[in-house]
Amino acid sequence: MKQTHSGISHRRGEFAVLAEIRQRAARAANLGRNSSIRLGIGDDCALLIPRAGEELAVTTDLSFDGCHFRINWHQPEAVGHRVLARGLSDLAAMGARPVAAFLSLGLPRLLTMAAAGSHRNRSHSWVQRFLDGFLALAEAYKIPLAGGDLAESTLAVADIILVGAVPRGRALLRCGVKPGDLLYVTGALGGAAAGLARLSELASSAGPNPPRIPKKLEALLTPHLYPQPRVAHGLWLQRRRVASAALDLSDGLSTDLAHLCEESGVAAEIDAAALPVHPAATLAQALHGGEDYELLFTVPQAARLPRAIAGVPVTRIGRILKTSAGRPAMTLTSSQGVQPLEPHGWEHFS
Amino acid sequence: MKQTHSGISHRRGEFAVLAEIRQRAARAANLGRNSSIRLGIGDDCALLIPRAGEELAVTTDLSFDGCHFRINWHQPEAVGHRVLARGLSDLAAMGARPVAAFLSLGLPRLLTMAAAGSHRNRSHSWVQRFLDGFLALAEAYKIPLAGGDLAESTLAVADIILVGAVPRGRALLRCGVKPGDLLYVTGALGGAAAGLARLSELASSAGPNPPRIPKKLEALLTPHLYPQPRVAHGLWLQRRRVASAALDLSDGLSTDLAHLCEESGVAAEIDAAALPVHPAATLAQALHGGEDYELLFTVPQAARLPRAIAGVPVTRIGRILKTSAGRPAMTLTSSQGVQPLEPHGWEHFS
Repeated sequence: MKQTHSGISHRRGEFAVLAEIRQRAARAANLGRNSSIRLGIGDDCALLIPRAGEELAVTTDLSFDGCHFRINWHQPEAVGHRVLARGLSDLAAMGARPVAAFLSLGLPRLLTMAAAGSHRNRSHSWVQRFLDGFLALAEAYKIPLAGGDLAESTLAVADIILVGAVPRGRALLRCGVKPGDLLYVTGALGGAAAGLARLSELASSAGPNPPRIPKKLEALLTPHLYPQPRVAHGLWLQRRRVASAALDLSDGLSTDLAHLCEESGVAAEIDAAALPVHPAATLAQALHGGEDYELLFTVPQAARLPRAIAGVPVTRIGRILKTSAGRPAMTLTSSQGVQPLEPHGWEHFS
Repeated sequence: MKQTHSGISHRRGEFAVLAEIRQRAARAANLGRNSSIRLGIGDDCALLIPRAGEELAVTTDLSFDGCHFRINWHQPEAVGHRVLARGLSDLAAMGARPVAAFLSLGLPRLLTMAAAGSHRNRSHSWVQRFLDGFLALAEAYKIPLAGGDLAESTLAVADIILVGAVPRGRALLRCGVKPGDLLYVTGALGGAAAGLARLSELASSAGPNPPRIPKKLEALLTPHLYPQPRVAHGLWLQRRRVASAALDLSDGLSTDLAHLCEESGVAAEIDAAALPVHPAATLAQALHGGEDYELLFTVPQAARLPRAIAGVPVTRIGRILKTSAGRPAMTLTSSQGVQPLEPHGWEHFS
């Protein structure tokens, strides 16, 4: 983590932010005991020590205010959590174990200053509360914050870079799927979209600050505000060599499945009745809602799967077919018959 | 490289940009022959294959319009070059060989569309010309673009993430410096600041578009627009185990030297007469001007250095001292005697 040349290097505020990130990252990560990190925040680069026989998985995800989150909708802790969850979900989709996180932050000055309001966290700045959410999730998944960048910006921007490790040749890819394979998902679908819809209503009647979430709505909003990346499930699939392909549901089932079909040159049919629709969600939200961060994966027909992995249900939702000139690439089978399934991924905040 | 959830996934323009980046990255990188990349753009993560006995160096640098570059000052090719050069310079400072690049881009829609003006490149969009500059430098340093992210944004943002490799325990760090060590720099200092000052004058008399650079000014502006990261020089120092510490001059000599002194708990004296001031620069620009991307390094007194490394002069500019209660941490010795040297790093565009 270093500050950039935006002219902030001599301003006390950012130095304080930088020093705090460094201290908290070191405390949270306990670098001395993490054998994969030889050098964390503070030099020109971080240094990672790969283990013999492992490949490294690298992913980057850019988030910014007004698109992936909204300063006036989301509590800063939720923004920090969601930024890291996006990256962890990509590692999960490869079956990789998390090794190190890097965070590039561009922040308006106001977000680095202590808040003056009457909120219980009023002595904490936005960025401190962002770090609370970020580091709590990092700790839960034992991933150290090993570096990054910090600059003053007119738009709040966070780029998360994660490095994971996976035994050589064993990563879960998008391209191994074959006609006849069965389609599975972890968890429930549509919960994040349903939560976002409810948050949007709350925010529209609140002022410029994020709405306080009533106790009774917390559970409903959790899939959107605090999604859980399926790291343990990706590792399970990778270690048992059971999945022919996997990806994470970030853009919505219909859009992500379309990517899978394109990459592998196959078609797919989904059984509407089998979909694990989140209790608060509609079928449309389950089909097209983004940011559930569940895993979508395929297994050969002969494979046996348990009903749950690491305490989370896994559900067969359809199967992979050969492409055919007369048939759409994706179809949805329901009591109304067979319909084409178009990719209509959730458009955030649009 | 994947597009994010900004609702752009169904818009033709960004798909075209994404497809073009993917094609050009694959062409430029020739992934099949680069043994360090097993999987590039297109899956949830890229996969890198570390070599036995090597550590991986990771760096991220965030750049955005109005701070690290200006859409109305800089030709897009120069922006692409500079974004990558910043990252390569961090690898150089560790003595690491470049392995893979990742690029997170947030761009206003206008920058992804073909330009309508009368410019000779008018059929090319801003982002295509950005890639021209980026990929030309990537090719020169044989570093493949292995992944990243792309989203529509109100502010042009580019986060560069580089992975390099260095034999275990051999990286050039900031913390190995000892009192008595001699201070060296590669190349000349102040050239980037002098070029930026000239570009600022040109831009102030131009309209909303970057000024055309007159032929006779090209050489003067090159250190600012197209800085050369000192990758070969970092590798040379690392392989010969001659440097006790190294870092790259991104914020300016006075600011970066202050970091070095802080990290190692030492003081430093600079000999003004010895400074390799760029012919177009002032002494102040050489001392405080940022973005020269030269290497600043220390060697034990007994070490012998050639006058040039890989065709670039190396110059002894001072030495490291013990800290002392009565003396400033950094001093400048000149014909006017010994003065305190304060960190006054270049404040870009401020």
